[in-house]
Amino acid sequence: MMGKNNIKVMCEGVRAASRKLALVGKNKRDKAIIAMANALVKNASYIIKENEKDLKVAREKKLSAAMIDRLMLNDARIRSMAGSLVKIAKLKDPVGDIMEKVKRPNGLLIKKVRVPIGVILVIYESRPNVTSDCIGLCLKSSNAVILRGGSEAINSNIAIFDILNREALRSDLPRGVISMIMDTDRRIVDHLLAQEGLIDLVMPRGGESLIKEVTRKSRIPVIKHYKGVCHTYVDAGANLKMAEDICFNAKVQRPGVCNAMETMLVSHKVAKAFLPSMIRRFNKAGVQIRGTSQVRRIAPGIKLAREEDWYTEYLGLILSVRIVKDVDEAIEHIMKYGSYHSDAIVTENKRNAMKFLNEVDSACVYVNASTRFTDGGEFGKGAEIGVSTDKIHARGPMGLEELTSYKYIILGNGQVRE
Amino acid sequence: MMGKNNIKVMCEGVRAASRKLALVGKNKRDKAIIAMANALVKNASYIIKENEKDLKVAREKKLSAAMIDRLMLNDARIRSMAGSLVKIAKLKDPVGDIMEKVKRPNGLLIKKVRVPIGVILVIYESRPNVTSDCIGLCLKSSNAVILRGGSEAINSNIAIFDILNREALRSDLPRGVISMIMDTDRRIVDHLLAQEGLIDLVMPRGGESLIKEVTRKSRIPVIKHYKGVCHTYVDAGANLKMAEDICFNAKVQRPGVCNAMETMLVSHKVAKAFLPSMIRRFNKAGVQIRGTSQVRRIAPGIKLAREEDWYTEYLGLILSVRIVKDVDEAIEHIMKYGSYHSDAIVTENKRNAMKFLNEVDSACVYVNASTRFTDGGEFGKGAEIGVSTDKIHARGPMGLEELTSYKYIILGNGQVRE
Repeated sequence: MMGKNNIKVMCEGVRAASRKLALVGKNKRDKAIIAMANALVKNASYIIKENEKDLKVAREKKLSAAMIDRLMLNDARIRSMAGSLVKIAKLKDPVGDIMEKVKRPNGLLIKKVRVPIGVILVIYESRPNVTSDCIGLCLKSSNAVILRGGSEAINSNIAIFDILNREALRSDLPRGVISMIMDTDRRIVDHLLAQEGLIDLVMPRGGESLIKEVTRKSRIPVIKHYKGVCHTYVDAGANLKMAEDICFNAKVQRPGVCNAMETMLVSHKVAKAFLPSMIRRFNKAGVQIRGTSQVRRIAPGIKLAREEDWYTEYLGLILSVRIVKDVDEAIEHIMKYGSYHSDAIVTENKRNAMKFLNEVDSACVYVNASTRFTDGGEFGKGAEIGVSTDKIHARGPMGLEELTSYKYIILGNGQVRE
Repeated sequence: MMGKNNIKVMCEGVRAASRKLALVGKNKRDKAIIAMANALVKNASYIIKENEKDLKVAREKKLSAAMIDRLMLNDARIRSMAGSLVKIAKLKDPVGDIMEKVKRPNGLLIKKVRVPIGVILVIYESRPNVTSDCIGLCLKSSNAVILRGGSEAINSNIAIFDILNREALRSDLPRGVISMIMDTDRRIVDHLLAQEGLIDLVMPRGGESLIKEVTRKSRIPVIKHYKGVCHTYVDAGANLKMAEDICFNAKVQRPGVCNAMETMLVSHKVAKAFLPSMIRRFNKAGVQIRGTSQVRRIAPGIKLAREEDWYTEYLGLILSVRIVKDVDEAIEHIMKYGSYHSDAIVTENKRNAMKFLNEVDSACVYVNASTRFTDGGEFGKGAEIGVSTDKIHARGPMGLEELTSYKYIILGNGQVRE
C-alpha cells in the first residue's frame, strides 16, 4: 500500500505542478483537452477491454443491474465522453476574469480576479466517465486534480487515466497536474484527507456513506454532492394538466438521478381531481406509489408509506405521495424531510409561488417546471462537475466558475495606512 | 456541563429561529442593531464592571500585557463597539440581490439570488468586541449566530451578549437568532462541531492551535482566519524612499495584527543603498531585526535569523530580513514560508510587478502599497468579520456579501425535460 509519506510526497508534487499549471496559457490547455478527446476515441477498444475486467468482477460479485449499467462502457459511451471533453475545451475560460474593480479614495486600485482553486481531490464511485469529465473540467479551470475512483471501476479508470495522462504529457502540461490513486486500499483516503496544506478542496461524489465518511475525516474543505430527495407540490387551483406533465417528467424521465422527484405533495383541494388519473399514468409507466391513508382512500390498492419513505431517495420507479392542507404544510414537509436539492411548486397563485420560493431553503426552487432541470448544461453553464448540496462556496449545479477562487490585486503608488 | 443532547436541542432551536429570521424585513433588523448600539453605550458601566472581573483573573494568571490590553474595555472602546454597530446597520443589505439572471431557450427564467447562509458558529479568543461585531454582521446579513468566546473574556462576553440579546427580543427578532455558549468547558466545542445538519459554517478566530483543532474536528464547513506571515519585497530599481515608507508602515503602524509585515525581502542590487537607513529607522521605532549573514554584513550588530523565523508571525516589533537575487527568489521564498495572506512588491518594473501578481498565490497581492490595507473597511466593504486565508467560499477580507450564500429560483410555465 502507498503509505502516509508516499501520499504526502505525491501531493507535494501535485501542488508544485498546480503552480506551474496556473501559468500555462488557455490555448495549450484547450489543445491538450482536444487531444485527450481524440485519444479516447482512438483507444476505445482498449478501454472496452479493460472495462470488461471490471464488468466480470461486478457480475461475479452479483452487483445490481443498475450498478453494472453505470459501470459499462461501449463505443457510444466513449464517444460521448470524448464529446464532453470537446465541449469543455470550447467553453469560456473563467480564470483571469475581473470580478470586481474599485478605485479607493486614497488612489488604491483593487481588483478581484478569478484564479484557480489549486489542487482538487475528487473521490467517486462506479461511473468511469467521471474520470474524463473531472480531468477536462479541472484542466479547463487550471486546477490540478487527484482522482480516487471506486475499486469496482479500477481497470476502466486506470485505462482512461493512462490515455489522458499520456496526452497531457505530450501536450507539455506539467507532470502531475492530473493524478490518479491506483491503489484501492481504503486507508489511502484517510491519508489524502489529512493533506490540508497541499489539497485545497475535496469533492466526494457517491453514496451517503462515502460522503459522511469524507465529511467526518477531512481536514480539507469539502463540497458535498449529497442525495436529492426532491419534491413537487401541486397547489390548490394549479393547472392540473400542467401539474401531471411536470410530475410525470420529474419522476419518470430519468429516475436514477439526483434531480428526479421522490415525493409528490398534493393540496387536499385538488387531490380528488388530480390523483386518480395521475396515479394511473404513473402505474402504466411502472411507478410504484406509496401513499398516506388519505391518498389510499382516493387510490385504493397502493402501498402505505412509512415514515422512512419520506426521507428516501429511491433513485428508481417508486414515489411517495402525501395530501397536504396548503402551501405551508407542503413547505413544512419539504424542510423536515427533504435534502434541500431541488423542489417545485405547480401553482397559478402568485402569493403561494412567492411564499414557496422564499421559504423553501433548497439549492434550486421551481415554479411550474420539472425538477429535472437542475443541471449545469440546462442552467447554461456548459458542463457540470456535480450538484452541490452545500451552502458554502457553491450551491446547486457546479460549472467551471464554481471551480475557481479569487485573489485581490492591489495597485498603488506608495500608499501607506494612516 | 451542557451535554451533547443539550447542544443538539439548542442548535435545533437556532436553526428554527434562522428560518424565521430569513423572513424578517431589513428595517426591523436595522432598527434592532441600532437599539443594540444604544444599549451598549447606556450600559457601559455595567460592561466595564463585568470586564473588571475578567481583567482581575487575567492579572492573577499573569497573562501578557498585550493580551490584557486586548481584553480591556473602557468607555472609548465601548463607544467604538457601538459605533461599529451603527455603521453595520447603515450598510446595504446584500440578501435578495439578483446575482445573475438568464432566460433559457426553453423559456425558463433562472435567477441566482443571494440568501443568508443560515446558522454561523463563531469560535473566538479574548477580544470582547468580536461579540458585538459578529452579532451585528450576522443579523445584518440575516444569519443566526452562535457565539463561543474564550474563557478569559467570559464575563465581558456574557454582559455584552445579555444587553444585545435583550434588545433583539425587544425588537421582536426570533428568540435564538443570537445565541451564546456560556459554559466554558472545552468539550462543548466538540459537540458543536458535530452538528453538521444544524450549523452551516464555522469561523474560528484566534491562535494557530485553536484553528488547527477546529479544522481537525469539524464536520461543518470551516472558513479559517489563519496567521498572516506577510512579506514586502523591495525590487531592484525600486523607488527607495517609497519602499522605506511602505515597509515602515507595514511593520510599525500596528504590529499586532495579521496584515502587518513579518519579513522584508530585498534585491541584492539595492540592499546596500536601502538597508542601512531603513534599519536605522526601524531601530529608532524599537523594531528588532533578524537577518541573514548577508544582511549582517551590511548592518552589523543585528541578530541572525534562524530557519523558524521565516515561518513566524511575530505580531510585535520584530522583523526578519533577507537579501534575494531577484523577483523569482522572492516569490519562491514567499510561497515556501508565507501564509498566503498579504504580500507586496515595491518596484518600478512592470514585468516584475506582473510576475509577482501572477505567481504569488496569496489572498491579497500588492504593488507599491502597504500590506496593512488588507481590511474590509479599506477595501470598501464597510465592515469585516475577518480575513479568510482559505480559498473556498471567501478569500481575504470578509464583509457582508461573504456571509451570504445563494439559491437558484427557476420560473417556468410547464417546462419538462426532453
